[in-house]
Order: sequence, then structure tokens, then C-alpha cells
Amino acid sequence: MSRTIKITLGYDGTDFHGWQIQPRERTIQGEVMRALEIVTGERTHVDASGRTDAGVHALAQVASFHTESRIPCENLVKALNRLLPPDLRIFTAEEVAPGFHARFQARAKTYRYEIHRGPVCPPHLWRYVHHFPYPLEVAAMQQAALLFAGTRDFTSMASSEGRGEAEPDEVPEKSKVRTLFLSELAADGEKLVYTARGSGFLHHMVRNVVGTLLEVGKGNLAVEDIPRILEARDRTAAGPTAPAKGLWLVSVEY
Amino acid sequence: MSRTIKITLGYDGTDFHGWQIQPRERTIQGEVMRALEIVTGERTHVDASGRTDAGVHALAQVASFHTESRIPCENLVKALNRLLPPDLRIFTAEEVAPGFHARFQARAKTYRYEIHRGPVCPPHLWRYVHHFPYPLEVAAMQQAALLFAGTRDFTSMASSEGRGEAEPDEVPEKSKVRTLFLSELAADGEKLVYTARGSGFLHHMVRNVVGTLLEVGKGNLAVEDIPRILEARDRTAAGPTAPAKGLWLVSVEY
Repeated sequence: MSRTIKITLGYDGTDFHGWQIQPRERTIQGEVMRALEIVTGERTHVDASGRTDAGVHALAQVASFHTESRIPCENLVKALNRLLPPDLRIFTAEEVAPGFHARFQARAKTYRYEIHRGPVCPPHLWRYVHHFPYPLEVAAMQQAALLFAGTRDFTSMASSEGRGEAEPDEVPEKSKVRTLFLSELAADGEKLVYTARGSGFLHHMVRNVVGTLLEVGKGNLAVEDIPRILEARDRTAAGPTAPAKGLWLVSVEY
Repeated sequence: MSRTIKITLGYDGTDFHGWQIQPRERTIQGEVMRALEIVTGERTHVDASGRTDAGVHALAQVASFHTESRIPCENLVKALNRLLPPDLRIFTAEEVAPGFHARFQARAKTYRYEIHRGPVCPPHLWRYVHHFPYPLEVAAMQQAALLFAGTRDFTSMASSEGRGEAEPDEVPEKSKVRTLFLSELAADGEKLVYTARGSGFLHHMVRNVVGTLLEVGKGNLAVEDIPRILEARDRTAAGPTAPAKGLWLVSVEY
């Protein structure tokens, strides 16, 4: 009888070509499926709560798969970690109800984006932060960050390519309406940390919000411009996409 | 007229074969000297406060060199960082008195060693911690750590190869006497952090102290064994050398 397994995993996205399996590229999905095939003897498809782009990190991504294997979950974690590289780790595995799907049933996700403002980026941080050593109006950025919270059409913050990172099946495919329960920017010494908790995220959404906040910080946009940009439902109204390396998928709620 | 320049630099030691320049290996000294040669047009020898081994990291190593170049220090930092890889950064450069030498004049150095105790090592930490997911008697390790403080002969904690990482020239070359002003182990959730501030350190000294503390934690040695081990002045009396990757050179004082 087939079991449905839910795993939580973390990765340093620097040396991966993102989540999605690709011929000839090192991807997270590809590595996990390869290790699972060795451990279970089965070629099993692994679905994540959402695909992450090349360079994006995860503290606790969630994925699920079906298997005929009887291997206890604890042993599965150990066996997979022995096969996986150190920049990709399985934290937990548990058997869940047969209908569980990591992507379709995610109720909320939390992302974090970190900016390092010091004049020189410390070598142990370069993979994990966007280094921005220029002046920023942080108070204005913090005010602007709050304006993204709520339920709204986020077309202006969506990649023009248009795919959703976590498109729940109950929402019509083309809808760009999402709810951000939290959208805030914290300043901590040389660090700026933007946190967003939402019902779902469009492709590049967090990076586009951060890119827009940086335009506010530089004085190229005013706080008052944010509602106008959101209402425009036009990607070109907002700031550029911030680099992938500062982005972390922190958690997924079910 | 030749100037003497003092630089502080940080590095992620993972992908370097240590500080010391070597013919076909990527080393910190080699990279800095190569970048300096491009910027100044001179082949200048760069001396650090001490050589660090392959895999050992630095938050703020100090080094010095002589140059005929008139480039202002601020521009030197920027020019070097443009040439150096992101896992090696120059934080500051300043002109100092002609007699300054980063190694001979260091008065104290602080090292930190980090152990991660969680069942799985998070991917963004694997380069920077020693992952030890087994039971440890932390209170005993903390008591033992304090016993290394003071001025004593550290032969039992020195590499049998014998070279000093920071051998001050005023001390007879063969002396293994050093002073630890601070030797303590802090527990913080899944982290154990050993900190040592000392007048100087023998080769592998911090890693051998940590390896000995781990033996105490595992119950293979008792706290009461530490004075005996130190008095033995015999490397084989102590625990094994802990892995390089958990070790950080934190600061050097002059």
C-alpha cells in the first residue's frame, strides 16, 4: 500500500539551479528524487510547496511524495542525508493522510529577505544577503513595507513571465489576488530584514516588493507612490527585481 | 618612501588551503598578494598575525605589508575587494608606523569554535560549525573549559608537528608557555561556542582544547583529568583535534 510522506528540507540555493528538476543541471528536486530512488528503489515525483528560483534559499521548505517503501520515516531522513550534499538537508519526514499535497494544501508561507548595509560584505554572508552599501531612507522603507499587507491584486509585483510560485488549485489560474498577513521591514544594525507571511506568492513577488522598497529607500519613489503602483496592476510601475541570493523561504503552514 | 599598511580581512576558509601561499593551491596569502600586485604593481610580502589552517575562518584577521604605492588606504580597500573573490574580503586598511609587524606585535588573539548539536546540520551552517548530534554532558564541558585559563605550558594541546600559529619573537622559539586570559564554553540552544582569548596560540591549540572538551562531554574524560593532562606536557594525553571548519579567528589585539 502506497504511503504519502511529507518532508521538511533546507537548502543553500547558491549552487543549485532552483527547485525544479532539469536535465544536466543541479537542482533541489533533482537531488532529492535521485537520493529517494537510491533509498527506495522507486522513481517518485516530489512536489514542493512551491518552486524556488536559482539562488533562493530555504530554512524549511515542505515537499511530499508517494512511496511503496516501508522504511520508517526516521531512517528515511538519515538515509537521504547520507546521500545528499551538505547544502541540502532533510530535517523531518512523516507519514500523512493520502490526499496530502505540499503545494495544493499550503495555507500560508513566510519569506524573509535580508539586505546587508555594511561597507564590506562579510565572507560568511555573501551567499545569503543582498549587499547594498549605499545610503537608504530606512524609515520610509518601513512605512512603505506596511502598505503591501492585505488582500489585493499583486499584478504589479508579479513576474511578467507570470507563473506563480505557489498557485493553489482552488484559485482560478490567472488570478493575481493574494493576501499578505504580514509585510514588514526590520532594521537591526547593518541588517535590513523584510518579512512577508502570505496566503500564497506570485513568481518573483517578494523580490519585486523588496526591489520597490529599495527604490523608496533611495528616494526614487515616495511612500505615497505605493498605493498607486499596486493599483496600476502593471509590473513596469514598480521597482526592479531584487537579487535572488537575499531571499529565504522560512516556513510553510498547513 | 615605503609605507607600512595594516589591513583587517575576513575569510570563509572552506575553499582555501589555509593562509600560507603555496604553488598550485588557492590560499588567502596567495590571493591577497596577487591582488596587491595588480593594484600596486609591486610583488609585496603580506604577513598575518598568524597562519590559519585549511578550513579555518576569520572574522577579522590582521596582516601587514610594505609598499611604495601612494594609493590612499580607502581606495586600496575598494580596489582589492574588486579583485578578490567574495569569500575573502578586506575590511580596513590604514598606514601604521614603519616598525609595525602583524605577527610580532600581536598582544592577544581571540578564537571561537562553534559546535552544532541539532540532529541535522542546517545547510547554511555546514561550512562554519562542527556538527555533533550526539549526547554531551555540557555542564562538565563548561567546568573543564575554565581549567585551561591561565599561564601554563600547553605542550599537551600543541600539534605534534610543533609549529606555533602566532609565535611571538620575544618568546624562545621552543617555549610552549602561553597565557589564556579567557577560556569558556557557552551553550545557546543547539549551539555550543567555545571562546579563547590568549597571548598567543600554538598550532592546533584551540582545536585540541575543543577535542579534549568533547571527550569530557562524551564521558571519556572527567573534569578532574584536565589538570593531569595539562601537567603531562604530552600531546597523546589529550583528546583528538577537532575539525577545522568550526574554528574562527575573531580578533587580534595590538
